[in-house]
Amino acid sequence: MRILSGIQPSGALHLGNFFGMMKPAIELQDRGEAYYFIANYHSMTSLYDPAQRRANTMDVALDFLACGLDPVKSVFFKQSDVPEVTELAWLLTTLTPMGLLERCHSFKDKVAKGLSPNHGLFAYPVLMAADILIYDSNTVPVGRDQKQHVEVTRDIAIKFNETYGDTFILPEPQIKENAAAVPGTDGQKMSKSYGNTIEIFGDEKIIRKKFMSLVMDSRTPAEPKLDAHENLAVKLLKLVAPADIAAQFEDRLRVGGLGYGDLKKALFEHHWNYFSAARARRAELAGHLDHVESILWEGASKARSLAQGVLKRARRASGID
Amino acid sequence: MRILSGIQPSGALHLGNFFGMMKPAIELQDRGEAYYFIANYHSMTSLYDPAQRRANTMDVALDFLACGLDPVKSVFFKQSDVPEVTELAWLLTTLTPMGLLERCHSFKDKVAKGLSPNHGLFAYPVLMAADILIYDSNTVPVGRDQKQHVEVTRDIAIKFNETYGDTFILPEPQIKENAAAVPGTDGQKMSKSYGNTIEIFGDEKIIRKKFMSLVMDSRTPAEPKLDAHENLAVKLLKLVAPADIAAQFEDRLRVGGLGYGDLKKALFEHHWNYFSAARARRAELAGHLDHVESILWEGASKARSLAQGVLKRARRASGID
Repeated sequence: MRILSGIQPSGALHLGNFFGMMKPAIELQDRGEAYYFIANYHSMTSLYDPAQRRANTMDVALDFLACGLDPVKSVFFKQSDVPEVTELAWLLTTLTPMGLLERCHSFKDKVAKGLSPNHGLFAYPVLMAADILIYDSNTVPVGRDQKQHVEVTRDIAIKFNETYGDTFILPEPQIKENAAAVPGTDGQKMSKSYGNTIEIFGDEKIIRKKFMSLVMDSRTPAEPKLDAHENLAVKLLKLVAPADIAAQFEDRLRVGGLGYGDLKKALFEHHWNYFSAARARRAELAGHLDHVESILWEGASKARSLAQGVLKRARRASGID
Repeated sequence: MRILSGIQPSGALHLGNFFGMMKPAIELQDRGEAYYFIANYHSMTSLYDPAQRRANTMDVALDFLACGLDPVKSVFFKQSDVPEVTELAWLLTTLTPMGLLERCHSFKDKVAKGLSPNHGLFAYPVLMAADILIYDSNTVPVGRDQKQHVEVTRDIAIKFNETYGDTFILPEPQIKENAAAVPGTDGQKMSKSYGNTIEIFGDEKIIRKKFMSLVMDSRTPAEPKLDAHENLAVKLLKLVAPADIAAQFEDRLRVGGLGYGDLKKALFEHHWNYFSAARARRAELAGHLDHVESILWEGASKARSLAQGVLKRARRASGID
């Protein structure tokens, strides 16, 4: 089973990324042949700063490797090191009905949010289809919001197979039902666009300050809190602390006597410990960027030779070759 | 000065193609460095028969070489042998406003004609922009109907240069004002879509029959015809016969005494002579397809090394590299 996932190089890793996407992806590397690429072509639809793109691309590589992605088990590479994917995107685009793209939520949502629509945002699902199909992927783990794009990929692949003969494997979306929902500092879903993120590899002082500023209520420490399980700090603690310790804190908050300050301090410390090994590995890797480059490059050569084979099939089938 | 032109592999060469597009293109090869590519990627937006695409691609190569395209002077190649163009198309697409493509006549016209809109038809001007920009082209000879696409190319190039720094040369459209308007068998503009074409390299009998079926009026041979210059056969004769001979026929028709059958017969003979050298060369080339393949392949390697340099500039500028 080949598993494909594209990783947006979208800046500093935060708890929401880690538990929502990165940890499940890393766990999957033991359940199949994982192909993970850093989606720097896709980043072009919304980021126009070249230095930032380079930095984000390297950062997300460091983050993944530091957090346990194993380049021996997985094929890890930059999207743009397999440019064949853009050629396949053209082949697919000529069979993609306009209506299919017009119905994509991601485009409609971005336009609704007032982003000035560029054609890249509109055409993005076709490049994503090429990303998936060019590796003969069987499984694409996605959040609910990305399920539609895998369906678009299947629609395009079916159209191609019907038109030019069997060429592509039909991928299945695997919905990440159990991915942890991580609340941000304000209690909403943690997301860069809400400005409520807590970073993982940033400066200690700044991260501590973010934890200390978690939005709580004005009840006194002594008051019992029957809604302790709803408490933001408790929710986060359950992610980064051992289960029994998190349960103890929750109990102490419920019966009363635990101050928010103490709770937050404990939370910060568990966060800091939880990521200490990854932090050390990241610092080590950051001192050897050429090693990281060579990991990505090796991944790319593996991915590229697979991609070239599939592309050749598609070129032959469609009469380009 | 680098001149770029894309050639649609759209089937059997007819008089309209030859005088409207091919002859002017071949003449231009002496006035600059001509890059001529067979647009097989573009053909995918409307042709879904792979065998037909392969045949059309080879046919148009034979036609051009037979009619005088000199692969020593010009760089002649298949579009798909320089797949870098699809990668550049993605880079450009992320800077292309939707509105720019929505305003393109070619898409609006095709939809108005009832063609079911695929995304390839919509995205086509971006691939055309990549075709032009990837060779640092200075001049793009186009018919009036294609002028808008060169303007779109300039708009996209300006946007890229403004966003990421000077990367692309801005091309100029060169409008083919004086390209001969060639009437078809029914007097309308000769075009495959009107079913009124006269082929150049087809079967002699069929071509003769097409000339004999040119639409005339029912006047008797003896009648003088003051509108002789408007006569369809006279118009075509002026393209394929020496000027003095065409003038003689026009005069004879004007004063009366020349039957339409005789006129058409003479026209067919001049047509047949006009293309006799090309016909012989084409038969010779068709017997050596591997030679033709190697001409195209050599053109592609020249084009590709130029394209790779320009693409590298664009990748660096935009932070992909």
